[in-house]
Amino acid sequence: MLTFTRTTRIEWGDCDPAGIIFYARYYDIFDVSTTMMLEHALGMNKIEYLKVYDFLGHPLAQTRARFLRPTRFGDDVAIETAVVACGRSSFKIEHKLTRAGILSVEGYETRVWVVRHPDDPRRMKSHSIPAEVVAKLTQAPVA
Amino acid sequence: MLTFTRTTRIEWGDCDPAGIIFYARYYDIFDVSTTMMLEHALGMNKIEYLKVYDFLGHPLAQTRARFLRPTRFGDDVAIETAVVACGRSSFKIEHKLTRAGILSVEGYETRVWVVRHPDDPRRMKSHSIPAEVVAKLTQAPVA
Amino acid sequence: MLTFTRTTRIEWGDCDPAGIIFYARYYDIFDVSTTMMLEHALGMNKIEYLKVYDFLGHPLAQTRARFLRPTRFGDDVAIETAVVACGRSSFKIEHKLTRAGILSVEGYETRVWVVRHPDDPRRMKSHSIPAEVVAKLTQAPVA
Amino acid sequence: MLTFTRTTRIEWGDCDPAGIIFYARYYDIFDVSTTMMLEHALGMNKIEYLKVYDFLGHPLAQTRARFLRPTRFGDDVAIETAVVACGRSSFKIEHKLTRAGILSVEGYETRVWVVRHPDDPRRMKSHSIPAEVVAKLTQAPVA
Repeated sequence: MLTFTRTTRIEWGDCDPAGIIFYARYYDIFDVSTTMMLEHALGMNKIEYLKVYDFLGHPLAQTRARFLRPTRFGDDVAIETAVVACGRSSFKIEHKLTRAGILSVEGYETRVWVVRHPDDPRRMKSHSIPAEVVAKLTQAPVA
Repeated sequence: MLTFTRTTRIEWGDCDPAGIIFYARYYDIFDVSTTMMLEHALGMNKIEYLKVYDFLGHPLAQTRARFLRPTRFGDDVAIETAVVACGRSSFKIEHKLTRAGILSVEGYETRVWVVRHPDDPRRMKSHSIPAEVVAKLTQAPVA
Repeated sequence: MLTFTRTTRIEWGDCDPAGIIFYARYYDIFDVSTTMMLEHALGMNKIEYLKVYDFLGHPLAQTRARFLRPTRFGDDVAIETAVVACGRSSFKIEHKLTRAGILSVEGYETRVWVVRHPDDPRRMKSHSIPAEVVAKLTQAPVA
Repeated sequence: MLTFTRTTRIEWGDCDPAGIIFYARYYDIFDVSTTMMLEHALGMNKIEYLKVYDFLGHPLAQTRARFLRPTRFGDDVAIETAVVACGRSSFKIEHKLTRAGILSVEGYETRVWVVRHPDDPRRMKSHSIPAEVVAKLTQAPVA
């Protein structure tokens, strides 16, 4: 399955009066990782892949996180992201966020491939993931 | 000119490790106030007024703020918003944010009425504000 | 068990280019609801209850959400929050976010009562929840 | 005077239903740049320099921005930051954010060096900037 790793930094504006990251910011971080992984796999950025595959996005059906150790502003963290399952119109992703090699947070996402609803442009409906995209999501990671 | 006042609360997730609001959050607060003022004046919500007047939005050309006293999580604040100038395709707004009647922050905005560019859907261009909207923006406040 | 309901509005700045709320913003909304519920039950605001009970906060050990229907800017939503379990040093909360009476999102939180670590002011450790707080969290809702 | 340049990317969650960045996010970006410039100049991260110079932070007294061209998710941008004035207890910073070499946003900050108020730990007061820090802020940029 597809994997992707990046590093980022916990910033002052991400942290709360307890001096640690405000937990909702982890979901911003995970979303960026998922997008970057897909951009990397598909070889184009999100604005392009939305157009090329003519869909609205891959919003979340479910998400979950376990917070094992807090992170603080100035912390450099690594996020390892992996596709762990891929169905007809949805796929599952796991994120492991580490600081200095120690696991701080685990994140889990179930995302759905959606298109604009044919009867109502304000609504969305799930749609089968293009075979070409499934192939990229389920490819073996390069050793 | 049009005015609007609302109250809100500074939340834990808005504040930084110094225990005070992270200043960028004031701009989120001001944006909500401008939208609410327009919705109130036009008698419909933003999703509707974008459609009715067939425009893309009223993004900022300039914004400015003076921070006089910090606010903290749990603080109840009032935001007084007023249109202070209205031109052909832009308008100016002032916000005064107070806590317990004492001025904490002043915000200034210059916003532009924009439509989709006829030659390129990805670009925007300024457009004259509809006369009906100008009339609402420049109306005398109810005494 | 303790319950609390409030209403809020999905704002323009909470939404993404697909026109729907950016999912991480729900966690900001849930955090505010949990804080408000505790403030209401304890009869003081968070800045005060952190001081009175001399603790650092109630960060999340786990959180989870199911997104059933998207919400859009301008949507008025209600959030019903309830304590569903209360242990020695942790408690569980559920949030139901509805729009026009229809369930849009379910959120689940496991939170830990933490104090500053006696040996290292930069670290936190879990601590038993004061009996007085447990009594409030587990009180029967007023009919 | 001190200068610092970095690059970042405009993310999906930073953008609004008009498909462009929600303007308040520029202030998050500018704040990170100011912090990074100071960290680079002082040779330590913010958590350390707050401790070493025993102060609360450098909150904003004023901030201002001019938005010349919108940016969109996926845009790679560069932010050039420079100290433009340094007084006894405050300093001024300018940011130029460009995309593909074209100026998109100009930001201006006046920041104050603050310490905890001796009479009230909840309040802050301005304090003279340490000579060593002034020397770093006003140093000639390396050619």
